[in-house]
Amino acid sequence: MNAPALADVQAGADARGVAVARAGIAGLAAPVAFADAGGELHQCLAQVTAWVAVPAAKRGAHMSRLAEAVGAWKDGEISLAALGAWAAARRAEQDSPAAGVEVAMTWLLARPAPASGRPSWLDYQVVAAATSTADGEELTAAVEVPVTTLCPCSKEVAAAGAHSQRSLLRAKIAVADAAACGIAALAGQLEGCASARLDAVLKRDDEKAVTEGAYARPRFAEDVVREAALLLTEAGHARWKLRVRNLESIHNHDAFAEASSEAQG
Amino acid sequence: MNAPALADVQAGADARGVAVARAGIAGLAAPVAFADAGGELHQCLAQVTAWVAVPAAKRGAHMSRLAEAVGAWKDGEISLAALGAWAAARRAEQDSPAAGVEVAMTWLLARPAPASGRPSWLDYQVVAAATSTADGEELTAAVEVPVTTLCPCSKEVAAAGAHSQRSLLRAKIAVADAAACGIAALAGQLEGCASARLDAVLKRDDEKAVTEGAYARPRFAEDVVREAALLLTEAGHARWKLRVRNLESIHNHDAFAEASSEAQG
Amino acid sequence: MNAPALADVQAGADARGVAVARAGIAGLAAPVAFADAGGELHQCLAQVTAWVAVPAAKRGAHMSRLAEAVGAWKDGEISLAALGAWAAARRAEQDSPAAGVEVAMTWLLARPAPASGRPSWLDYQVVAAATSTADGEELTAAVEVPVTTLCPCSKEVAAAGAHSQRSLLRAKIAVADAAACGIAALAGQLEGCASARLDAVLKRDDEKAVTEGAYARPRFAEDVVREAALLLTEAGHARWKLRVRNLESIHNHDAFAEASSEAQG
Amino acid sequence: MNAPALADVQAGADARGVAVARAGIAGLAAPVAFADAGGELHQCLAQVTAWVAVPAAKRGAHMSRLAEAVGAWKDGEISLAALGAWAAARRAEQDSPAAGVEVAMTWLLARPAPASGRPSWLDYQVVAAATSTADGEELTAAVEVPVTTLCPCSKEVAAAGAHSQRSLLRAKIAVADAAACGIAALAGQLEGCASARLDAVLKRDDEKAVTEGAYARPRFAEDVVREAALLLTEAGHARWKLRVRNLESIHNHDAFAEASSEAQG
Repeated sequence: MNAPALADVQAGADARGVAVARAGIAGLAAPVAFADAGGELHQCLAQVTAWVAVPAAKRGAHMSRLAEAVGAWKDGEISLAALGAWAAARRAEQDSPAAGVEVAMTWLLARPAPASGRPSWLDYQVVAAATSTADGEELTAAVEVPVTTLCPCSKEVAAAGAHSQRSLLRAKIAVADAAACGIAALAGQLEGCASARLDAVLKRDDEKAVTEGAYARPRFAEDVVREAALLLTEAGHARWKLRVRNLESIHNHDAFAEASSEAQG
Repeated sequence: MNAPALADVQAGADARGVAVARAGIAGLAAPVAFADAGGELHQCLAQVTAWVAVPAAKRGAHMSRLAEAVGAWKDGEISLAALGAWAAARRAEQDSPAAGVEVAMTWLLARPAPASGRPSWLDYQVVAAATSTADGEELTAAVEVPVTTLCPCSKEVAAAGAHSQRSLLRAKIAVADAAACGIAALAGQLEGCASARLDAVLKRDDEKAVTEGAYARPRFAEDVVREAALLLTEAGHARWKLRVRNLESIHNHDAFAEASSEAQG
Repeated sequence: MNAPALADVQAGADARGVAVARAGIAGLAAPVAFADAGGELHQCLAQVTAWVAVPAAKRGAHMSRLAEAVGAWKDGEISLAALGAWAAARRAEQDSPAAGVEVAMTWLLARPAPASGRPSWLDYQVVAAATSTADGEELTAAVEVPVTTLCPCSKEVAAAGAHSQRSLLRAKIAVADAAACGIAALAGQLEGCASARLDAVLKRDDEKAVTEGAYARPRFAEDVVREAALLLTEAGHARWKLRVRNLESIHNHDAFAEASSEAQG
Repeated sequence: MNAPALADVQAGADARGVAVARAGIAGLAAPVAFADAGGELHQCLAQVTAWVAVPAAKRGAHMSRLAEAVGAWKDGEISLAALGAWAAARRAEQDSPAAGVEVAMTWLLARPAPASGRPSWLDYQVVAAATSTADGEELTAAVEVPVTTLCPCSKEVAAAGAHSQRSLLRAKIAVADAAACGIAALAGQLEGCASARLDAVLKRDDEKAVTEGAYARPRFAEDVVREAALLLTEAGHARWKLRVRNLESIHNHDAFAEASSEAQG
C-alpha cells in the first residue's frame, strides 16, 4: 500500500561524477553455520561487512537489501564458495560493477592438553571474504592465531630465563580452490610456527612441557613470519600476507613483523 | 536575541518520581595541565566525564554547561584539589544534590634504562576524580601501571625458563590530603610490586638485567596485589582497591587478582 | 609419572597477611547453551570470568581448575540457576570463602520489521553472573540494548527536524527467582523506553514508521533511565542499576544518565 | 664492560630465504610537538609505529634503536618533512632496503560555536607517515573527522523528522609538498562535506542552528565521500583514499562508503 508512494532516493542519478568504490554495511551481527573444507561446521555469531560499488552516475546503494540477504543465512550453511556466489548475486541484484562480503568469526580448535591430555581448546579469529566483479570472483581467508613467543636475544644474553609473551599471528591467503581450503587446519599448522601454542587448560605437567618447549624454541617476530611463509609456500599458496604482533612482556609497546608473497623473489 | 524565545526543556518539571543519580557527559577530549603533588605538571589530552545528580522532580541536567566548564581548563592548571572545587561549583550552578568529574590521562615516567642508563620512559594511565555532595567532597586517584610478571609455578616445575607476560596493575585510592598525594610517585612505587618494570628502550645489557631480575622475582597475580596492598598500607592510605591483570603468555585468556581495604581484617 | 614430583606452589602458605578478594581468569572463550527462563536456548560463544577468594594465609588460586570447569559446559545447558550451583561447587573445590562467575554473551531478538513485517533482528549484550559465599548465592543479570534517542531540546528549539543517535541502555538486576527471570523478555521491554527500537532490516515503509515514531517520542538520556526504572519496578525487581549512553550525533562526546534502586526514596 | 660479551643475535645470518617486509615496534607512546604546515604546533602524546625491512639473508631488526630514535623527538619539533628524514636515517642506520614511521595523534580544532560564538572545539585523529626506500621517500597524511549525517531517504519518506547520527570521515592523502600540506586546514574543510559539523559546546541557539542546518543538508555516506573527493581534487591532491562510517541511529550496525583516486575515471 504504502510503498509506491515512497520515493527511492538511492536509485536517483548523481551529477558529481565520482565513483564510490564500496558502499554498504559493517558490523552486522548474524548467526552463521560456516562449512570449512576440513569438514567441520562452525556455528557462531559473525560480524558481517557487505558492499556494492556505486557507479559515478548513480546516487547510492540499497543497503537494506544487503542486510536482508545476510539475514537469509540463518536458514542454512555458508562456505567460502557460497560467499562467492552470494557476492555475485548482490552485484546482479543492484546492477553494480562490483560487490563483496567479509564474515568475521571466532572459531575453536579443540585438542588435548600437551602432557595431561585433558580437554583443552584455543579460540581464534577467522575472516572469510569474497569479491565479485565482471572479471570473476576473488576469495580470501584470514586467520589470527594467538601463540607464545620467547625472545632469542633475551635467552642468549641472560644467565637464566628468557622473557616470553602472547603474540598474535595473522595469515591471509588468496583462495584458489575453495573446496580444498581447510581454514581450521591452516590455523592448527600456524600454531607450530611460534615458540609454543596456547591452551585454555594447562595442569602442572602441561605447564612444565609448555615452558620447557618454549625455552627450547626461541622465536623473534621475524622468525615467526618466516616459518609461516615457508609453511604457506609448501602448502601451495601463491598469494599470502603474514603479520605477527608480540604483546612484549618487557615493553609497553608491541613488536611486529610482516611478510608477503609479493615481496619475495 | 534568540535565546529568550527558546524553551529550556531540561529545566522543566518531571512527574515520574525517579531520581537520576548521574546525568552528564563522557569521553569529552580536553587539553589539561595537571599539577601533581609531586611537583610535576602533566600536559596531556584528557578524556573527561562530568555529571550532576538530577532530583526526581526535575527534568534534566544542563549538559552544555558541563562542557563549557571543562573548556575553561585550557587557560590554567588543574589538580586534585581543583577538581574538588570544580565539582562543588557545578553542583551549585545546577542547584543539584551532587556533582562529579573524572579526568582520564596518559602520563609518562621518565628514567634511565636499568643497566645502560639510556633515557627511557613508561606511559601509564591516571584517573583523577572528585565528587561533591552536601556532605563534602570525595577525591580519588587511580593509576594503571604496566609491569612484567613471571610465573612462580612455571619456574618451579620447569627444568629451564619460566613464562612471563605483560600485566596491568591498577590501584585506586581515596585521597585524604590532596596536597600530599603524589600520583606519579605512587605509580613509580607500584612498578616495584611485580617481577620487573617495563621500559621503552632496552639495550642488550638492559635486557640481560631485566630478564635475570624477573627470573629472580617470580610473582603470581595474587602476589602482586598483596605487595601493592602492603605498599599502600605503609604509605598511610586507608581506603584502596587493587587489581592486576596478566595477559597470560601461555593462555588466550587473562589471569587476574583483586584486593581492597574493605576486605581486610 | 611426572605429577607427584611437581610442587603445588599455589597451595602453599602466605605470610603477608593480605586477603585476596578475587583471583581467577577473565576473557575465557567458551561455547555455551544458555537456557533463559523465557524458554529459549541461546547458543553462543561466551566470554567468561571465574574467580575464587584467596584467604590471607593461602598463596593462590588454582586457576586451571576454573578453566576445566568452564570447559565442562560444552556438554550441556547452563542457566542462571546452574551458575549459582557452579559457583558453589568452585567454592567447595578450592575450600574458599567465596567464588563467582560472569558469562558475557551476545543474543539475538528476532521479530518482524515494524511496517513491512520483514524478518529482522537485534543483537544485544547479556551478562549472567553468580556469586557464592557462606551466606548463600547472589545471582544477577545484565542486558545492554541499543536503541534510538531523539533529543527533546533539539525538537523543541528547531523549526524542523531533531537530532537523533544510537544509544546503549544497560540494566542490571539482582535476580530473586532464577526460574522466573526471562532475560530476553526484559531486553524486549527495555527497547520500549527510548524514542525507537533498532532493527537490522528496514525497508522504506519501515524507515518512515521508525523516523516518525522517534520524532513523536523524544527522550533525553534522563527520560530513558526513568522509563526503564518504572518498568523494572512494575516488574517487581527490587534491586537494579540502569545506565544509558547516547552516542551524540551533534557532539564528539557522549551523554549519559544513571539511576539505581538504592538512590530512590 | 658488559656489552662486548653479549651476542648480537639480530645481526646474525638467516638461511630460510624469506624477506621480511617490515619489522619494528607499534603502539609506542611518545610526546611530540608536531609542526603542521598551517603554522600551528600540536603538542600531544602520539602512538608511534616504526619499522625497517629485513632482507632475506639477515636475522632481524634492531628494534631498540627505533625506540631510542623516537625518544629523541622530545627535544624538538617533528613535521611531515622531518619524518621523511627520520625514516631515511633509520634505513641508513640499519643498512636496510626500506624504513618507515607512522605517528598517530589527537588534535584539536578550536573555533566559536555556530550561533552563540562560545568557545568550542573538535578533537580529531591525525596520522602522519613516511616511508624511505632506495627510490626516495613517500609521505602521507590521514585525518579522521567526526561529523553529523542526516539521512536523505529518512527525510524524504517521513512526514516529520529524519534520523541522524555521528559519522567518522577519514581522508588519507599522498603528500607531494610537505611544506604546503596543512593538515588541520584539511580537517576543517572535510567537516563541510557532511550534514553538520560537531562542537563540544552547543547552547540552545547553537543547537537550533545545527539541527536546522543538518535537516537542510541531508547526506548519505555516499554523498559525503563524493563531496570530499571533489574537495581533495580541487585542492590539487592527486592520490587519496576516503572512507566514511555512519554510526547508524536506526540500526545496530554501521553504514559506510569508500572512494579513492585510483577508482576514478
